[in-house]
Amino acid sequence: MKSRKAEGQSLMTTDLLKEGERLDDLERNGLSVIQNPGLFCFGMDAVLLSGYAKAYKGDRVMDLCTGNGIIPILMSAKTEGDFFYGMEIQSLSADMARRSVRLNSLEEKIDIIEGDIKEAGIYFDAASFDVVTSNPPYMIQGHGIAEKSDSKAIAKHEILCSLEDVVSAASYLLKNGGRLYMVHRPFRLADIFEVMRRHGIEPKRMKLVYPDAGKDPTMVLIEARKGGKPYLNVEKPLIIYGPDGKYTEEITEIYGY
Amino acid sequence: MKSRKAEGQSLMTTDLLKEGERLDDLERNGLSVIQNPGLFCFGMDAVLLSGYAKAYKGDRVMDLCTGNGIIPILMSAKTEGDFFYGMEIQSLSADMARRSVRLNSLEEKIDIIEGDIKEAGIYFDAASFDVVTSNPPYMIQGHGIAEKSDSKAIAKHEILCSLEDVVSAASYLLKNGGRLYMVHRPFRLADIFEVMRRHGIEPKRMKLVYPDAGKDPTMVLIEARKGGKPYLNVEKPLIIYGPDGKYTEEITEIYGY
Repeated sequence: MKSRKAEGQSLMTTDLLKEGERLDDLERNGLSVIQNPGLFCFGMDAVLLSGYAKAYKGDRVMDLCTGNGIIPILMSAKTEGDFFYGMEIQSLSADMARRSVRLNSLEEKIDIIEGDIKEAGIYFDAASFDVVTSNPPYMIQGHGIAEKSDSKAIAKHEILCSLEDVVSAASYLLKNGGRLYMVHRPFRLADIFEVMRRHGIEPKRMKLVYPDAGKDPTMVLIEARKGGKPYLNVEKPLIIYGPDGKYTEEITEIYGY
Repeated sequence: MKSRKAEGQSLMTTDLLKEGERLDDLERNGLSVIQNPGLFCFGMDAVLLSGYAKAYKGDRVMDLCTGNGIIPILMSAKTEGDFFYGMEIQSLSADMARRSVRLNSLEEKIDIIEGDIKEAGIYFDAASFDVVTSNPPYMIQGHGIAEKSDSKAIAKHEILCSLEDVVSAASYLLKNGGRLYMVHRPFRLADIFEVMRRHGIEPKRMKLVYPDAGKDPTMVLIEARKGGKPYLNVEKPLIIYGPDGKYTEEITEIYGY
């Protein structure tokens, strides 16, 4: 992804960019996303999730903890999904996400809600979504954080939003048979499965992401189904770098280079 | 592993072999194991578990659903463990396991108990083991079995022994901080974690076994700790066949060729 500074953009773009922000070209369908390096920037996790998640024609999709909206923006291009919502509790991020939606002229496809996913019931009916996606904060609440009001810390740690909050909101929002797609860290796997089952969401598909074939996995991609029966398909590994030190074909495909 | 028929063995060996049985050379420390192809023969799962499980000096080790005793026999050679028990409910298998112990002159290291692991309390005190190992039946009770009294079906399906039975027995037998090592099928992963946590045993280490880097994993190796804190180390993949179609170095090492 190529970054461009706020200067020297088209009029519309500079209108939408604020100080300290940059525009990242997503190299797919001409899409860009606004980011602020002072806040949390999306990583490979979000891109891999947008490649793992499926949304079909007519699907209503919700992204919980959407940050700058990277997942709905990518999924609006990669899938046939009908309409995409993103919920984000941090004002600065939600505002950036909204401007990215405008920048890409995706207002007819994506809506960003600034709000707390614990209060999803204020905004949405129960069982009103086919798909929920989430790249939530990974780290257990409060472990080794200096400043809990720090925006990056909020994006990375379970300060305002825990795994339980995400799964609980997904369970409320999803229709029976609806799908939850999540990217997380492998060290939380037992927590993830436990919380999902407690909320009636059954893990059905899982893929571990290994930096290379000789390293421990750094991410896990999971598809779970509300009201699903127990049977987990653990899939072939997703390996990021091949023996030649370059991105493997699978990664290149997901990134759409 | 090389198989030899009952004929043409040393006197001691032929004494210990019954009709229909064969002797498999384990190619480690001169060890052999008696098998009956009419019953369940051990597979790569058992060998991989014996390489994944750790037993240290002074450790008392229990193998639940030991079958022909392959795991305690291999672990007696591969680890520093002090003493190994194997529990097996099927008479024919327990008898074979006992004869394999005699054949290898391991009576001072291994004892085979014919019994039901659900009644482990009859034979052993609570919290009296440092390590429990198990390569239990993988398949959900009764799924697609013609004959439930069939010895192979009992070894493969949860007819006489379920995942819950194994974990419950392990929880009874293990000291606090003691380790449970299990090999199982990846499709049961959510069940495994749920049952372990319900019995106070926390998954701490896990390795997926992939036939090759492009295939779904066929086995999962797990280390769990009684009374452990949540944090799962998902380890680098164990890949069986390299791009050249031959066993990878890691597999060769575990087999000790």
